[in-house]
Amino acid sequence: MTADIFSHPVRVYFEDTDAAGIVYYANYLKFMERARTEWLRRLQVPHHALMAAQQGVFVVKDVTLQLSAPARLDDLLDVTCCITQIRAAALMLGQTVEREQTRLAASTITLVWVDGQRLAPRRLPASLLNVLPHPQSG
Amino acid sequence: MTADIFSHPVRVYFEDTDAAGIVYYANYLKFMERARTEWLRRLQVPHHALMAAQQGVFVVKDVTLQLSAPARLDDLLDVTCCITQIRAAALMLGQTVEREQTRLAASTITLVWVDGQRLAPRRLPASLLNVLPHPQSG
Amino acid sequence: MTADIFSHPVRVYFEDTDAAGIVYYANYLKFMERARTEWLRRLQVPHHALMAAQQGVFVVKDVTLQLSAPARLDDLLDVTCCITQIRAAALMLGQTVEREQTRLAASTITLVWVDGQRLAPRRLPASLLNVLPHPQSG
Amino acid sequence: MTADIFSHPVRVYFEDTDAAGIVYYANYLKFMERARTEWLRRLQVPHHALMAAQQGVFVVKDVTLQLSAPARLDDLLDVTCCITQIRAAALMLGQTVEREQTRLAASTITLVWVDGQRLAPRRLPASLLNVLPHPQSG
Repeated sequence: MTADIFSHPVRVYFEDTDAAGIVYYANYLKFMERARTEWLRRLQVPHHALMAAQQGVFVVKDVTLQLSAPARLDDLLDVTCCITQIRAAALMLGQTVEREQTRLAASTITLVWVDGQRLAPRRLPASLLNVLPHPQSG
Repeated sequence: MTADIFSHPVRVYFEDTDAAGIVYYANYLKFMERARTEWLRRLQVPHHALMAAQQGVFVVKDVTLQLSAPARLDDLLDVTCCITQIRAAALMLGQTVEREQTRLAASTITLVWVDGQRLAPRRLPASLLNVLPHPQSG
Repeated sequence: MTADIFSHPVRVYFEDTDAAGIVYYANYLKFMERARTEWLRRLQVPHHALMAAQQGVFVVKDVTLQLSAPARLDDLLDVTCCITQIRAAALMLGQTVEREQTRLAASTITLVWVDGQRLAPRRLPASLLNVLPHPQSG
Repeated sequence: MTADIFSHPVRVYFEDTDAAGIVYYANYLKFMERARTEWLRRLQVPHHALMAAQQGVFVVKDVTLQLSAPARLDDLLDVTCCITQIRAAALMLGQTVEREQTRLAASTITLVWVDGQRLAPRRLPASLLNVLPHPQSG
């Protein structure tokens, strides 16, 4: 884990798998969300605190997901989260899922910050901007 | 379907199965919840209307679940919902999952009506009591 | 629904929503998968029959997902499935989620046909090719 | 954690919550399953090894679940697993979910050991019996 690449371990349980014997594709997005939640917690801005203090929430706007090899029951995965761009009302993240240095999945995620009632876009709160790392190039 | 036994069809998709090739046990509780939601919709009291009009919500308090045979991918299931008892702040339901008249699962569920903010028990709203069928004996 | 656009209704239940009050983003991929499963069933090639006859299965390789407006509890959604390209070992699909003619989500999905044991790519089975509609342009 | 009470931490993510702002009831069964999977891993008999060596799998037969207080987003939960009875082809477990020493949920689970093909009950494998702790009284 370099200074800017956050990694979070995820264990694969029966709930994550399907009748093809592998992790169900939508569940990789759950793993990605867990990792970026822990990344925010590490930055001292967990979701519930942001929601309570700012009356806002992140919603996902755009996702790409490439699956190159399947994860299976009992696998221990590393899920990374790396910020790639900061916009006025949005964050862009790059995330991966690896098993013993082999990449299984890669994802780009655009999160938009919205008010909690109408879900309309709002400028990212200062309390968040103050702690976000600079996006990585490349 | 007799006068008082509501039945709702549920198809089994990959999302519902696990690496043992069968429906993951927790997902039967999703199927049960879908059926009782449709039962409430049939009674003209869908969840979102109850929540909006009464500022309350049903929360599950007690569950029993017996699984006698597994459901599998692509199965078409019938999920029933039958009211067994009405209390001041709670409903007790009996629910089953069947595939072609064979019972796969049976459940008893106690739902408590609570206010939406503090989740404290409240008397069942009159708009609900007015439309609920009488509990079945036996 | 035109001749080549398949549409499948999906109701939103509590299981699909999250604490932000809207459908959890990963669950749109469940809705997409249900619709393309029903599309295959309509073509008389349901998953379990393909798996049994061909000893193979579809796995998802690439996904894009754009979320333009949130779905909420009790919403009734239309999920479409449209084939956009047929390759030797893969299908490319375009899928959308709409609520009363308003598009909430759009997705592109690449499915690869693999053998059931090693999950290695295999040519699409003839029984499938024989029934697939021609991809739509545009 | 006493000698015989295994405890596993579970963090609550958006995926676990629903539009009522609390953990969706079926997801407590996922938390229970994660904890008993980790309990088996601690005993050196993880699911995939049992499945590979014995050609069998545990299926859930009976569940009771009492929910006394809701878990919420970002909660850190302790999920326990305690064996209460060993039968020829089944294990009975007691499990709880706690948040800072407050019990939120309690469950009893009967797991039946079945062969992987026909899912018919089989005697518990010796490799498992050799490592299981004695059931707790009381």
